[in-house]
Amino acid sequence: MIKTDILIIGAGPTGLFTVFEAGLLKLRCHLIDALPQPGGQCSEIYPKKPIYDIPAYPEILAGDLTDKLMEQIKQFEPGFTLGERADTVEKQEDGTFIVTTNKGTKHHAPVVAIAGGLGSFEPRKPPISNIIDFEGKGVEYIIKEPEMYRGKNVVIAGGGDSALDWSIFLADVANSVTLIHRRNEFRGHLDSVDQVQKLKNEGKINLITPAEVKAIVGDGKVEGVEVHKKEEEPFVINTDHFIPLFGLSPKLGPIADWGLEIEKNAIKVNNALDYQTNIPGIYAIGDVNTYPGKLKLILCGFHEATLMCQSAFKRIFPDKKYVMKYTTVGGVQGFDGTKKEAPKAVVKAIN
Amino acid sequence: MIKTDILIIGAGPTGLFTVFEAGLLKLRCHLIDALPQPGGQCSEIYPKKPIYDIPAYPEILAGDLTDKLMEQIKQFEPGFTLGERADTVEKQEDGTFIVTTNKGTKHHAPVVAIAGGLGSFEPRKPPISNIIDFEGKGVEYIIKEPEMYRGKNVVIAGGGDSALDWSIFLADVANSVTLIHRRNEFRGHLDSVDQVQKLKNEGKINLITPAEVKAIVGDGKVEGVEVHKKEEEPFVINTDHFIPLFGLSPKLGPIADWGLEIEKNAIKVNNALDYQTNIPGIYAIGDVNTYPGKLKLILCGFHEATLMCQSAFKRIFPDKKYVMKYTTVGGVQGFDGTKKEAPKAVVKAIN
Repeated sequence: MIKTDILIIGAGPTGLFTVFEAGLLKLRCHLIDALPQPGGQCSEIYPKKPIYDIPAYPEILAGDLTDKLMEQIKQFEPGFTLGERADTVEKQEDGTFIVTTNKGTKHHAPVVAIAGGLGSFEPRKPPISNIIDFEGKGVEYIIKEPEMYRGKNVVIAGGGDSALDWSIFLADVANSVTLIHRRNEFRGHLDSVDQVQKLKNEGKINLITPAEVKAIVGDGKVEGVEVHKKEEEPFVINTDHFIPLFGLSPKLGPIADWGLEIEKNAIKVNNALDYQTNIPGIYAIGDVNTYPGKLKLILCGFHEATLMCQSAFKRIFPDKKYVMKYTTVGGVQGFDGTKKEAPKAVVKAIN
Repeated sequence: MIKTDILIIGAGPTGLFTVFEAGLLKLRCHLIDALPQPGGQCSEIYPKKPIYDIPAYPEILAGDLTDKLMEQIKQFEPGFTLGERADTVEKQEDGTFIVTTNKGTKHHAPVVAIAGGLGSFEPRKPPISNIIDFEGKGVEYIIKEPEMYRGKNVVIAGGGDSALDWSIFLADVANSVTLIHRRNEFRGHLDSVDQVQKLKNEGKINLITPAEVKAIVGDGKVEGVEVHKKEEEPFVINTDHFIPLFGLSPKLGPIADWGLEIEKNAIKVNNALDYQTNIPGIYAIGDVNTYPGKLKLILCGFHEATLMCQSAFKRIFPDKKYVMKYTTVGGVQGFDGTKKEAPKAVVKAIN
């Protein structure tokens, strides 16, 4: 059982910044995210795209935003349960919560902060009837551990940046990489398209277009895929892995069944005070919540996280009085023993 | 008469970021600030001090925060009335406002956003009975135009960073600089204290401690100051300027008389919706406002500014429907003709 002060569901920008604000209040945080790395959408969907409305950043790449936030919270030693989806919550008699993931990992905390963004990102699957039987047995929709493909034969399907980027990356790792797309045209960064063209010319990527994988062959695990190419007879390619990269679509998922008030696929919160949901002790912050005038912007999540942490502190320590100190004045004391503070003024005579 | 869409009172971080959010909605902004430069406290009081709780900035100097915000809003061409204090507001029959400064400059806008921080910074004055008679006639509490001291004789009073830094700066500009402090010890950055010591040793700064200026001498303008030094007879130093730098203290000031609901020296707003005050069309954002759970943090001001702009848009264009577009998707179109946008994905065949 993982124990923490604030259990944060979702490791996107809002969830990450919560760790910082909680840390200033000496509260520890643990984050659960279905994706294999922190950063949420910013890392998984658009790491190389610029964001222009983060205050005081005229421009920042989404991936860099994640890096900066990770650097800012490092001193508060957050815990992470990654690649697992928060599935159930059980309220205990003492008012605390136990949250269990789809892989059975249990987390215990007095406060739960749902910073789930648009939901957990679920892969769009190709219409192959028995694909479910092969999931985890050679079929993967998200690449979590590139090393598992070393020396293996891999078929990637898709025509966007993910398919292009992973084909390029795995060309150096796998025994063979076959990229299959239902059109001749790919949609992505010019650099990526050109690099796949180059690797194809060098024989390092097998390209089959326009074509689709319509069946998976194998006994208990993937052994091959059946490829349908225009104006050709279907044929089978032997492969160890089949990786359809057709994008991720967000789903509120199991959280929708936690007994929270839901409106327009988002969780209703008390925005007049502390972004708490209808279940005391469970808060919702960032894109996952809704209230009158709500804007799904990262900078709003930062504010909501900050006010939420103050309320969480009062819930956890009802008798303690907290006096806010500005970081410029009081510095920041990490749980790891580090202390950041402004250079102190001296008092010194001039003679 | 200066005309704009949103008239912002206060050019601190919250006021500056408002320009950006308004710009995304194609609304123009004009800012009034009593200080001679934008940035509010961050620029005037602690430009060289680090802030640790700006999201995604593990550390940023307050002065750099101002610079980054100025860069971010440049494309939306904000107007500025600096060195003037917003004194009166008159609601017009059509629901718009005319705001007049202490120097008589008039501004006309359908929306007023008070982003006044802790108030307008008023200098702490030394207890010299007739000092008011010499204000603007050789007595200055804030240095607005360093060039006006070129070749002049200057007496600075104070023992903190402002007194030290301006003594150092003016030592190269003025004909003579005399620094007077009631203690031998100065309180400030070690560098500054050491540099004043060096300039004193070189004869470039006259230092008189422990001493106080207790009277001003002059006929219609400053001609000298009377210095009282411990265990000495009072004596007069001839000077063109007397600059007491005893710090600035924030005062809500004339805004307190605008008919706004005030609580604990701050303006009450509707935090459940749009940070509007009791006067429709006048909003209060950032440190100047109060509501249940309010935290006087810069990041909260950014959020409040953002929601406020949406409400201002509806007030100005009641019939227009605004659909928010993410800057990552839609880019940012400046009023100056510039456009920032993410590199476009290409659609390109691989053969």
